Amino acid sequence: MSKTFDAIISKVKDVPMKTVSVACAHDKPVLEAVKAAKEQGIANAILVGDADKMKDIAAEIGMDLSAFEVIDIKDDVEAATKAVSIVHDGKADMYMKGLLPTGTFLKSVLNKEVGLRTGKPLSHVCVFEIPGIDRLLFFTDVAFIPYPTLEDKKCMIDYTVEVANACGVEMPKVACLAAVETVNEKMPVCVESDALSKMNDAGEIANCIVDGPLSLDIALYKEAAEEKKALDRKVAGDADILVFPDIHAGNIAYKAIVHMVPCKNGNILTGTKSPVILTSRSDSMEVKLNSIALASVVAERMNNR
Amino acid sequence: MSKTFDAIISKVKDVPMKTVSVACAHDKPVLEAVKAAKEQGIANAILVGDADKMKDIAAEIGMDLSAFEVIDIKDDVEAATKAVSIVHDGKADMYMKGLLPTGTFLKSVLNKEVGLRTGKPLSHVCVFEIPGIDRLLFFTDVAFIPYPTLEDKKCMIDYTVEVANACGVEMPKVACLAAVETVNEKMPVCVESDALSKMNDAGEIANCIVDGPLSLDIALYKEAAEEKKALDRKVAGDADILVFPDIHAGNIAYKAIVHMVPCKNGNILTGTKSPVILTSRSDSMEVKLNSIALASVVAERMNNR
Repeated sequence: MSKTFDAIISKVKDVPMKTVSVACAHDKPVLEAVKAAKEQGIANAILVGDADKMKDIAAEIGMDLSAFEVIDIKDDVEAATKAVSIVHDGKADMYMKGLLPTGTFLKSVLNKEVGLRTGKPLSHVCVFEIPGIDRLLFFTDVAFIPYPTLEDKKCMIDYTVEVANACGVEMPKVACLAAVETVNEKMPVCVESDALSKMNDAGEIANCIVDGPLSLDIALYKEAAEEKKALDRKVAGDADILVFPDIHAGNIAYKAIVHMVPCKNGNILTGTKSPVILTSRSDSMEVKLNSIALASVVAERMNNR
Repeated sequence: MSKTFDAIISKVKDVPMKTVSVACAHDKPVLEAVKAAKEQGIANAILVGDADKMKDIAAEIGMDLSAFEVIDIKDDVEAATKAVSIVHDGKADMYMKGLLPTGTFLKSVLNKEVGLRTGKPLSHVCVFEIPGIDRLLFFTDVAFIPYPTLEDKKCMIDYTVEVANACGVEMPKVACLAAVETVNEKMPVCVESDALSKMNDAGEIANCIVDGPLSLDIALYKEAAEEKKALDRKVAGDADILVFPDIHAGNIAYKAIVHMVPCKNGNILTGTKSPVILTSRSDSMEVKLNSIALASVVAERMNNR
């Protein structure tokens, strides 16, 4: 079981090296991450985009572009279509966003001929390594689905369980978060969290243990669960996966942790045929590299299904 | 302007010492906080509750009960009614919960004859001192109003501005949080945050600068605001007050910060005639003491209105 990003990176090195296809790779932070991934034996890359700009950036960051396959396409839409088709055709294992608008990138992901659509909703999984917590935490969904329905949340849990599995967590514990740990009928979030727990009991959500509603302290900290007499819950201080009520709750908590806690994180887009790396421009090179490593273990797991 | 809890405590010592009336004071953590408040010159206390139990606890923690007015009432409801009436009658400045159910305590707060009701909604303000942030942050509402309406949020902002004022922040900057900083019509939280910002422009919410929707990073961190080209916003990296979309978003972020960040915090209930201290059993003695200091500066401010 990987308990740190270092462990995920070690895990990546134990399996055949994966290749990431990058749309509009002419972007400095993306090329820095791709360069580091190659140097550290984490992943190869196929770089689609403006080759002239890539050469300039490569010279600036001391990157040997000849070690990579470079496909020179200057138009964003054409570059993304080509880059995603490479993954679609099985010549690369995962798909990464470079310097193009998110909307254009997502259109390529959902392209009916050459994209990676599964017919299920797309969702975002963020993996955190947080000091004082002895395991990786998997957050869903802090960035993609604004107000997930019950059905969306079932999909979100399925996707995140798969990511946790890929990191070696075989029967993850899932906490559906709310402000309180009791089913208050006046709070729809509580009712929905309880419904997800019951769907898990009935076998409709499998390969994990789902509990909710749970407050964050009971979900993550044994002492809090003990103090609040919640140790008999299915999940009590030992959650691996946190399901947020909606994108606002998720995103606010995510940003508080990223900015206030000396943590590590990486993230991927799920609900696709292959892992998709959609980091934001404000993510550091380390976050992008962690995300490539995460996508690699997920791709390996998908290959072995 | 108080930038730390130490500064709030110093501020308390510059004004006439306040008195807290405690309902069902026969509780160890509460008596420890009351003892520390007295010793540090932060507040006096009138202790209403089971005097026998108080004596036992006082012996255990080395507290001189004779330094306090003790009123022996064993029944919870009667003790709370007496304790709140002491504040109502002006013999104490603030009201604090001891060992009784929250529901019973709140009924005493809202008692029509001897309580502290104003006719406006009750709400909760939490004050944080967080490493890396050069000012106190005021959170509303992480614990009381489940799904605040626009009108509730206006009240919440008014209350929190008053608490910030009491801490010396005269024209606080208020960020109405959401996952994103743009007005996305599909996200009601964004529309509502924008409405609050416009109500502030129109003078309907006064004595502060309100902006929203804002993501947490833009609200709190100048670098993030700069990177996301949001420096021209009314609030950009310099928010004092954070308004959360609902209790779930607020409570999850609050608990993440309390557990993951080496912070200090204190909190009070607002919307009452006098400050009310409603800390939870899991709050440390330090949090209770900070809350008494906070209530004292708020009581001082209310006296001088």
